[in-house]
Amino acid sequence: LAEHSNYEEIAYLLLFGKLPAKQELKDFTRKLAEQRQLPKELVKLMKIYTKTANSMDALRTSVSLLADYDTNLSDLSVEKNLERGIDLVAKFPTLVTTAYRIKHDLKLVKPKKNLSSAANFLCMLLGETPREVAVKALDTDFILHAEHGFNASTFSARVTISTLSDMYAAIASAIGTLKGPLHGGAAEEVFIMLKKIGAAENVESYAENALKKKEKIMGFGHRVYKTMDPRAVHLKAMSKKLAEDTRNFQYFSISEKLEHVVVPLLKEKRIYPNVDFYSPTVYNNLKIPEELFDAIFATSRISGWVAHVIEQLSD
Amino acid sequence: LAEHSNYEEIAYLLLFGKLPAKQELKDFTRKLAEQRQLPKELVKLMKIYTKTANSMDALRTSVSLLADYDTNLSDLSVEKNLERGIDLVAKFPTLVTTAYRIKHDLKLVKPKKNLSSAANFLCMLLGETPREVAVKALDTDFILHAEHGFNASTFSARVTISTLSDMYAAIASAIGTLKGPLHGGAAEEVFIMLKKIGAAENVESYAENALKKKEKIMGFGHRVYKTMDPRAVHLKAMSKKLAEDTRNFQYFSISEKLEHVVVPLLKEKRIYPNVDFYSPTVYNNLKIPEELFDAIFATSRISGWVAHVIEQLSD
Repeated sequence: LAEHSNYEEIAYLLLFGKLPAKQELKDFTRKLAEQRQLPKELVKLMKIYTKTANSMDALRTSVSLLADYDTNLSDLSVEKNLERGIDLVAKFPTLVTTAYRIKHDLKLVKPKKNLSSAANFLCMLLGETPREVAVKALDTDFILHAEHGFNASTFSARVTISTLSDMYAAIASAIGTLKGPLHGGAAEEVFIMLKKIGAAENVESYAENALKKKEKIMGFGHRVYKTMDPRAVHLKAMSKKLAEDTRNFQYFSISEKLEHVVVPLLKEKRIYPNVDFYSPTVYNNLKIPEELFDAIFATSRISGWVAHVIEQLSD
Repeated sequence: LAEHSNYEEIAYLLLFGKLPAKQELKDFTRKLAEQRQLPKELVKLMKIYTKTANSMDALRTSVSLLADYDTNLSDLSVEKNLERGIDLVAKFPTLVTTAYRIKHDLKLVKPKKNLSSAANFLCMLLGETPREVAVKALDTDFILHAEHGFNASTFSARVTISTLSDMYAAIASAIGTLKGPLHGGAAEEVFIMLKKIGAAENVESYAENALKKKEKIMGFGHRVYKTMDPRAVHLKAMSKKLAEDTRNFQYFSISEKLEHVVVPLLKEKRIYPNVDFYSPTVYNNLKIPEELFDAIFATSRISGWVAHVIEQLSD
């Protein structure tokens, strides 16, 4: 799927339980395009609260406020929740990038109807039409982050909906949970570490020193995977491709070296790069600021969360 | 505790793990009094978003926004989280009543330093100094709702904080979870049923009809209690006292009759009145509108949630 599909297909797969046929994908993509814009009153409020909030807190507040635009909140039918799901998948790129541009005093960029979720994200964030290689990289990142079973954020969404609360309540819980450094916040921590290392030639001393002091090396190890995280394989390839394309190898080379140094040292513990290890170098080469690393995760994972909420309600 | 303490003592007990000595209670109560007021900018925002939001959505958004006033969000030390806990316990009555008065175009009432949480809640809600019997009733209600182990809202707060997210994220999850009709929303459902029954003489036909159709009778049964919920015992007494005091027996008499009719019919299933069965009649005689029934629950439970968040972080 990471190689041969796109995020819209994956979002459809998660929401409807099967990959879309050509016409279904066309309709779905059109629906997303029509719903990317935010309610005007919400943007008015965002202009106040996103000024100082961090990106995940702003996103949680925005989703909490979106409940207010739903005229039939207590209707928890599959049809209604699929509608909400499509709306949220459509709006998340707009919510995250709008908050960022307000915070940094940048003129807001409207979503474009002819662009995908990933392309819109980059376009609204950076204010320029993104190059194809960049869109492909972020789209792949979105595919890889869209869903991953019973992780903590998904689980909190399920606990919240289990009282027959509502979709926005469940998604607000998930965002608050994803925010933690043991979950979506990990990519940012990896990037902080990469910046601290600074150059590939410092990797060995950094790693030895960290292991000696029994400090955690960020981006390694996973509760489920006792081998290289299959998502990391794709992210590494994408990271390399982007480095070649932008001729900026700084962080890719640090990451790659760190992988080569750390994996043999931790082989007995079966600790390998996880999904958060190569994504920061991808984001960095896409000019995405690190304060958005976990909000990107949420922008993709929203489709998985919605699917879990609907599944939880079905039984 | 319900008979011999007050909510401030209980909040202290939950946060600090022991009942306060006289001076400790005095200091704690003073801190609460000092922190009841909301940031001005927050009230400005509330004047927009609480206009149309329901009380629980408004409260969730408000807590999500409060994160923004915390200058050291990632400090998860016990000391810092106790500070936040005291602040949240102090501000919840203000948050709930401010949202209500804005929504209903009523002039805002400032918190009073000499009033308890329960008295402030009534005073800010109704715009008049509450009578002692009313304060005692709501205070007892607050004590009974402050904490109840691993219920769904508490559990969602724990899941959220488990990623080392932050206090506001955890509490926002809890509010979203409490909102559901299978949890905090149940008291409102009971009241809707009582209004539908309308008078004590309709109880028998209502109950027989409902049981015949295998419809749920709201406010009965509990996952844990297979006897009358010990909290319901106190709420029933309080409900009766308030009915006598206000000479308004309408809903108390329906509730009491319903209990007498339903309990023998469901004896084999061990289904008895739960905490939500008598609280609506208490609230109604306190002139608290039903749209606030679950927000009252949150106003009390915030102390229990904070205690659980701190406990979760401790291991």
